[in-house]
Amino acid sequence: MPPITLFPRGFAAVRFGSRFATRTSIAARFSSTVPAVSFSGTKHLLTLRDLTAPQILALIRRSLELKESMKVSQNHPAAGKQGQPLAGKTLAMIFTKRSTRTRVSSETGWAHYGGHPMFLGKEDIQIGGGEPLKDTAIVVSSMVDAILARVGAHDEIETLAKNSSVPVINALTARYHPLQGLADIMTLYETALPNALSHTPSASLPLPLLPPLNVAWVGDANNIVHSLLVSLPRIGPISLTVATPKGYNCEADIISYAIGEATGGDNRGTVKFTHDPKEAVRDADVIITDTWVSMGQESEKAKRLKDFDGYMITEKMAKEGGAKPDWKFMHCLPRKREEVDDEVFYNPERSIVFQEAENRKYTVMAVYEMLMLWAKN
Amino acid sequence: MPPITLFPRGFAAVRFGSRFATRTSIAARFSSTVPAVSFSGTKHLLTLRDLTAPQILALIRRSLELKESMKVSQNHPAAGKQGQPLAGKTLAMIFTKRSTRTRVSSETGWAHYGGHPMFLGKEDIQIGGGEPLKDTAIVVSSMVDAILARVGAHDEIETLAKNSSVPVINALTARYHPLQGLADIMTLYETALPNALSHTPSASLPLPLLPPLNVAWVGDANNIVHSLLVSLPRIGPISLTVATPKGYNCEADIISYAIGEATGGDNRGTVKFTHDPKEAVRDADVIITDTWVSMGQESEKAKRLKDFDGYMITEKMAKEGGAKPDWKFMHCLPRKREEVDDEVFYNPERSIVFQEAENRKYTVMAVYEMLMLWAKN
Amino acid sequence: MPPITLFPRGFAAVRFGSRFATRTSIAARFSSTVPAVSFSGTKHLLTLRDLTAPQILALIRRSLELKESMKVSQNHPAAGKQGQPLAGKTLAMIFTKRSTRTRVSSETGWAHYGGHPMFLGKEDIQIGGGEPLKDTAIVVSSMVDAILARVGAHDEIETLAKNSSVPVINALTARYHPLQGLADIMTLYETALPNALSHTPSASLPLPLLPPLNVAWVGDANNIVHSLLVSLPRIGPISLTVATPKGYNCEADIISYAIGEATGGDNRGTVKFTHDPKEAVRDADVIITDTWVSMGQESEKAKRLKDFDGYMITEKMAKEGGAKPDWKFMHCLPRKREEVDDEVFYNPERSIVFQEAENRKYTVMAVYEMLMLWAKN
Repeated sequence: MPPITLFPRGFAAVRFGSRFATRTSIAARFSSTVPAVSFSGTKHLLTLRDLTAPQILALIRRSLELKESMKVSQNHPAAGKQGQPLAGKTLAMIFTKRSTRTRVSSETGWAHYGGHPMFLGKEDIQIGGGEPLKDTAIVVSSMVDAILARVGAHDEIETLAKNSSVPVINALTARYHPLQGLADIMTLYETALPNALSHTPSASLPLPLLPPLNVAWVGDANNIVHSLLVSLPRIGPISLTVATPKGYNCEADIISYAIGEATGGDNRGTVKFTHDPKEAVRDADVIITDTWVSMGQESEKAKRLKDFDGYMITEKMAKEGGAKPDWKFMHCLPRKREEVDDEVFYNPERSIVFQEAENRKYTVMAVYEMLMLWAKN
Repeated sequence: MPPITLFPRGFAAVRFGSRFATRTSIAARFSSTVPAVSFSGTKHLLTLRDLTAPQILALIRRSLELKESMKVSQNHPAAGKQGQPLAGKTLAMIFTKRSTRTRVSSETGWAHYGGHPMFLGKEDIQIGGGEPLKDTAIVVSSMVDAILARVGAHDEIETLAKNSSVPVINALTARYHPLQGLADIMTLYETALPNALSHTPSASLPLPLLPPLNVAWVGDANNIVHSLLVSLPRIGPISLTVATPKGYNCEADIISYAIGEATGGDNRGTVKFTHDPKEAVRDADVIITDTWVSMGQESEKAKRLKDFDGYMITEKMAKEGGAKPDWKFMHCLPRKREEVDDEVFYNPERSIVFQEAENRKYTVMAVYEMLMLWAKN
Repeated sequence: MPPITLFPRGFAAVRFGSRFATRTSIAARFSSTVPAVSFSGTKHLLTLRDLTAPQILALIRRSLELKESMKVSQNHPAAGKQGQPLAGKTLAMIFTKRSTRTRVSSETGWAHYGGHPMFLGKEDIQIGGGEPLKDTAIVVSSMVDAILARVGAHDEIETLAKNSSVPVINALTARYHPLQGLADIMTLYETALPNALSHTPSASLPLPLLPPLNVAWVGDANNIVHSLLVSLPRIGPISLTVATPKGYNCEADIISYAIGEATGGDNRGTVKFTHDPKEAVRDADVIITDTWVSMGQESEKAKRLKDFDGYMITEKMAKEGGAKPDWKFMHCLPRKREEVDDEVFYNPERSIVFQEAENRKYTVMAVYEMLMLWAKN
């Protein structure tokens, strides 16, 4: 294992030896889980753009630690008296759109800490219907301890946050999906820097930056790629290439932020945009896609299938494009057959989609800790 | 602060000095929360009419205490070993009608005490459909610890209660909405007697009666005004004036009870009925309204909007009617624009609707204590 | 009380005196609830056919014990530190069909042990729709601690179990309903061997077999009778007679298993099949039926009502068929009027349907203990 020298700005670079690499040492250190990086002023999570790189890395570090503790070592993350830090506390889960992964990960994560997740579907509560969102935000936030909402337009989550007296978590808008972004970053760490946690045996030490990595997004210009664009280039020398069909472009201000503030300088990533999927996958370490027809776009299906011709991820397409031989495939699920064939999707050497889905749980738990514990210290 | 001399019948009048008025003394006294007034025989909460005035005041006192503890002092109401008195206990929440405030307050309140609230919507369980209500009541009550139900006709909640082996809470019927009634009374206390809790430093001491107050109901003849009619005149010298359009009259037996048993004698309120909204608001301290078109009445909407002409609450209307200069506005929400204009609704000096909504949480928690703890002592 | 000599195979027969018959002794013994019979290798509960007779009896014994403790003695089954053994653990409840009893019993049982039951209705999650069941099983099981699913075809629950990393519980398929089967067996014990628990004062001692009993199934050839066919004949000298209309036959392999492996030998039951309901009830101790028109069969209703002519359970029908004078009536509910008349259904001397429903709670709690605790020891 080579010594790691890349650290996010704001942290002094520290070298670690191999003595931290044992599993037992990892499982034994939960007395202090509050990171040294400050989260004062972090009231909500609406987009990863609002977090600094060290803050994002603190979330990823804690996510890796939670997985290590809960899964590998079968330990409760905070056994004993601290085992139910959210006991008696209710999370309002406002979902105007159906969901499996976000629903299940968010609900189990909150319950794991002893809290009560209260699911409010579109039949249970009227968002944008009878009652103004502002009124709903004031009323619901006066009765609960946090709100997690899957809504439509991004300004809806902003209205919720502006009028809420408790933390608001964006569980998907048309513009951003920060919870998926965090799970994707965590999965990239597990793939490209599998012993990352060994380098940060204490929460007060920063996670190393990601190593150089070519990441290809091949698909729609949606909330997922937006979330990657505002985060990935800031946490390592990542080359992120985004291929979307003509007429499907990322939002201009996000492109501007990604090629401006997010990149440049030492140890920072780069971003490129193209309409050619094969160009995007050249030398790719990782290829990511998503559905071409999101919820609410069913009427455009025929047009979209035509527009995305050539975007299906297959072994042949990746080879012709020149992806690295051991490229990995990611997808936030649920997957439809037009986006990726079974040969890629169900090949455990290639596809890390189920690991990516599982990581939704640990990352949202870290977000709960950030908003309910860290930000209040 | 003048000494308070009005107390509900059944209690000896007690005078308190100002020494109890400090916040710290309030937060420090949770060792004994069971009120001195007896609740033996109180199995269900179907209507406030079933409670004596001292019982209603004990609920309000505890509600104020919970808010003080949870919100102002940020204390858990019952920390330590008693912190989860409902752990392992399930509340069946049977809702045949959609709801936001009742749903969220009832669910978070139960969860706050460590219990599991189980939401059963109209898709989950058939009430009045495939299975007789009697059978459902027997079966569900044999598996849960309490039932909270939002149904249609009031005899449905009575059938549930009659056949249930566990406490049943009325979460709205066509006839009564006792949980809203309690939140309204609590809000009146906070407005007219803001230091009420200082006078009752121990749960064994009664809350003072409300001071003289002119309350105007301007709206439909529905479950909310019914709930006020059977409670308000009994807990202080309240003058309650009810304005409803011609053809919209409160139920005869409730009118009879309100102008008979509920009023009269020392320190008791009075009730009046009119079809003139401006007459109702004369000298009003508080003006209350509600939606004109409740769930299930959508087909009557055009007729109702016409019948309620002149019932919209505005500054102009209140001034012309002769309301007191500092009159307050209440509404159980959600509000529609025809009932009250934005100038009144969003004026924090005038409108106490969001405080009223928040109080739904503390009052239902007091009801849980009444049925699950007090009534069993 | 005669001494009991019948025990399931694999246990040595033991005789008990009356000294164990006191209630206090029963309530006092919860220090060791793990039965002596091994459950290693029992990962899921898909059908009672997968359990040995001693395993079924261990579940019934624990169910009786839980009812005794929770209901009669008003004790928490596992108070103190072990009182919330499922704290922080989430049960995914995947229901593609509506349910009252299964929903309420499964949810309250899990919550009783401190866990979080997460209800996922057909609106919340797509089973058989957008996402293959295999993918859903992998993803959901990576985030939760157990899955309880009510699906359609039995191979759906098998696919869930095959791809799940956590225990899967069948909460009804077209073929089997093991949770109802267990509640029915428990109810038969309470009826035919009311002091059964007195004979097994410790979890390490087996429950006696059921005594000789004539059980008549009069109704559809469905998942309930299938569940009885694969279990009842193995746990005592039960004579099970199944009457279904012509054209309504139990699945061939289940008939074959029931008349083959399940029966024969000492202390084993027998099974018979007929199309004549009156023949079935001859000398019956217990008559069981169920709905004739299950969910999804509404279009066949007229035909089915005709085909089941003569199958309604009434006093007259039972008398003409020659049922024993004190025959008992069972039904898994909800009941429709064509299947049984009010005289039978609401006669507490005859009908034990509400007791049968309540037993759903204790039996599913025993199943949770089996999969989450016993199987892991």
